[in-house]
Amino acid sequence: MNETLTSPKGFLAAGVKCGIKSSKKHDLGLIVCPTGAKAAGVFTTNKIVSASVVICKEHIKSRSIEAVVVNSGNANTCTGKKGIKDAIAICKTTAGEIESDPHSVLIASTGIIGEKLPISKVLGGIVNAVDNLGADEKSGFNFAQSILTTDTKVKQAAVEFKIGNKTITIAGTSKGAGMIGPNMATTLCFLTTDANISKPLLQKAISRAIGESLNKLTVDGHQSTNDTALILTSSMAGNKIIKSQDASYKKFEKALCAICNTLAKEMALDAEGATKMFKVIIKGAKTQVDAEKAARAVADYDLVKCAINGSDPNWGRIICAVGSCGVDLNPNKLSCKLDNIVVFRNGTPVDFDRDAAQKVLEQKEHTITIDLGIGKKTDFCYGCDLSHGYITINADYHT
Amino acid sequence: MNETLTSPKGFLAAGVKCGIKSSKKHDLGLIVCPTGAKAAGVFTTNKIVSASVVICKEHIKSRSIEAVVVNSGNANTCTGKKGIKDAIAICKTTAGEIESDPHSVLIASTGIIGEKLPISKVLGGIVNAVDNLGADEKSGFNFAQSILTTDTKVKQAAVEFKIGNKTITIAGTSKGAGMIGPNMATTLCFLTTDANISKPLLQKAISRAIGESLNKLTVDGHQSTNDTALILTSSMAGNKIIKSQDASYKKFEKALCAICNTLAKEMALDAEGATKMFKVIIKGAKTQVDAEKAARAVADYDLVKCAINGSDPNWGRIICAVGSCGVDLNPNKLSCKLDNIVVFRNGTPVDFDRDAAQKVLEQKEHTITIDLGIGKKTDFCYGCDLSHGYITINADYHT
Repeated sequence: MNETLTSPKGFLAAGVKCGIKSSKKHDLGLIVCPTGAKAAGVFTTNKIVSASVVICKEHIKSRSIEAVVVNSGNANTCTGKKGIKDAIAICKTTAGEIESDPHSVLIASTGIIGEKLPISKVLGGIVNAVDNLGADEKSGFNFAQSILTTDTKVKQAAVEFKIGNKTITIAGTSKGAGMIGPNMATTLCFLTTDANISKPLLQKAISRAIGESLNKLTVDGHQSTNDTALILTSSMAGNKIIKSQDASYKKFEKALCAICNTLAKEMALDAEGATKMFKVIIKGAKTQVDAEKAARAVADYDLVKCAINGSDPNWGRIICAVGSCGVDLNPNKLSCKLDNIVVFRNGTPVDFDRDAAQKVLEQKEHTITIDLGIGKKTDFCYGCDLSHGYITINADYHT
Repeated sequence: MNETLTSPKGFLAAGVKCGIKSSKKHDLGLIVCPTGAKAAGVFTTNKIVSASVVICKEHIKSRSIEAVVVNSGNANTCTGKKGIKDAIAICKTTAGEIESDPHSVLIASTGIIGEKLPISKVLGGIVNAVDNLGADEKSGFNFAQSILTTDTKVKQAAVEFKIGNKTITIAGTSKGAGMIGPNMATTLCFLTTDANISKPLLQKAISRAIGESLNKLTVDGHQSTNDTALILTSSMAGNKIIKSQDASYKKFEKALCAICNTLAKEMALDAEGATKMFKVIIKGAKTQVDAEKAARAVADYDLVKCAINGSDPNWGRIICAVGSCGVDLNPNKLSCKLDNIVVFRNGTPVDFDRDAAQKVLEQKEHTITIDLGIGKKTDFCYGCDLSHGYITINADYHT
């Protein structure tokens, strides 16, 4: 199956090299929906945002979206008035090339913060991308490539399911790597579908799906200034329009969550320097907010991340993280499990085979379960280890 | 000058090897004030605390303190009822050896969390330490050595000043390295003095001094379960007792702050893997809480720490940290300086010489100044870079 953004009906895509990145890799991507798409999105809640986010949040209110332009290698953030001017120029040029309206063009950027966008290269890239638009898998793959920064591979997923006798397709691609800390939107994520669904429910579905997936992933706890997750639907699947939260909506939402979850896990495994991923599950919290806060605290704790990297069953660091993050807990009921090994139960350490535990921790995917022993709420968070690779990427080379 | 804890009048100290650490380094320290000392302290606010903290918080209420026992290599945390029993046994054995009361003995521990204390080794060590007590510099140095974990060197400082015609001495030592995130007490810190001062003002002075120094240092943002800062005074300097916040008190507090500041900087420079330290100064915040929060957010931001490590003037990461930490700011007035180089002014990037900036960043100590442009409050935080060394210490070797 074509797993790229071109697999739902009605979408063209392209990815080209316009010269922003010194590495000469793909750095400009374009999605076009010639019939006009309904769009919905989630954005960073950072108080400093990219000019692309400012413009995108404005344009997404339009009834019909015909294109999404994404550049990597430069965030167009902290770029003052020139940044806004450049973002508008991108929309205008794109609209001119595809004979649309600038307000029907969405935009996203990722890369270094605080450097001016090489706008003439970007505008040249748009013309080239329009020339290279295609509905095939290769075109979709080129788009997926064009949004990457320090990622080592493309992240994409697609799914087909039926509503009535109609086949619905949803496809998604995201960029991962670093500066990933969940706070509504996380990183860049683009989704296409052909489901016939009302705009408010499309918004509801993406908010929910991102909340349950990408928003539960932390690489370094750093919320980017550019986070943007967008979904476009061509409405071409032919199903009866979904306009209430009925069984069809539930099916759609479930499929969308699954796609986003796949992307989140791929991002954790391909995070900067990551060699392993883990899921932190918090049980027995007093409130939902506490459950979420504790899960993130553990997943963001550098000493826990280092222990996972070193396959070291040093569970005391996990308990320390939980104790210091400000959530209510019962020290006499507090328990902790590393994968299936109980290491701490009701406030007392449990003897376990350290060598066996170390062997288990050498695997690639883990679950850390903590019971706060004070309530019934539960939540989770995805994280990854902290390795020499992260330092190498973020300190040894200038970016 | 003798910079150790034995420099104020009335104190004996010792540091011995009792066999907790597999490295066979000093791991048990003892301070004795034969005439009985007034004591005050600050402790971790982590919800999970060491049995040593539990007992120490109880005993510090005593009118007269005669000894402080510290072990490194084991935190005696998450050790259930046995942990409390062990902590009490340490106080009893010490009191027996020096003919005191167990409630006149304070206690602190640092090291791995979740492993039972090898109590017979510790009790043997206490007997040995009592045999080795001395009022000389070597004895004080041995104590300073005995509290270290992954530190590469002893941290100590002392100061003399006059109140009237009497000489007052204050000395301090602390351990640093990792799991350091400010939240009232940070790490282990022991201070001795001979100033004649009331117990409430001694408490006021240490709370203030720690608040302005060690509490403003973050290595990895991780608040330990064992943090304990204690000050003991023998009251032997002969000055008229300080019992109000008069000029003498101010002098005492200022000197204590200076000692703690010296220790905080030494800790930043000797943090796990650290090659550089930096001070983050926030100006123009709307509230004091915002100023403090923003300073910590920048100092704790792994990507900023990596940039400092790599001498990379990537200031966008600093702005990203400030924008995501939840403080009020004015994006159009936001400004940032790396040492003396203005890189961002009133929301707009400033052209600067990158090569020159890189050269500046290759030095060992830095100041990052951020103006939030929305108020008049200011605060600061000390931090250090994130290097391969941190990973090596916390992932490559099992601790």
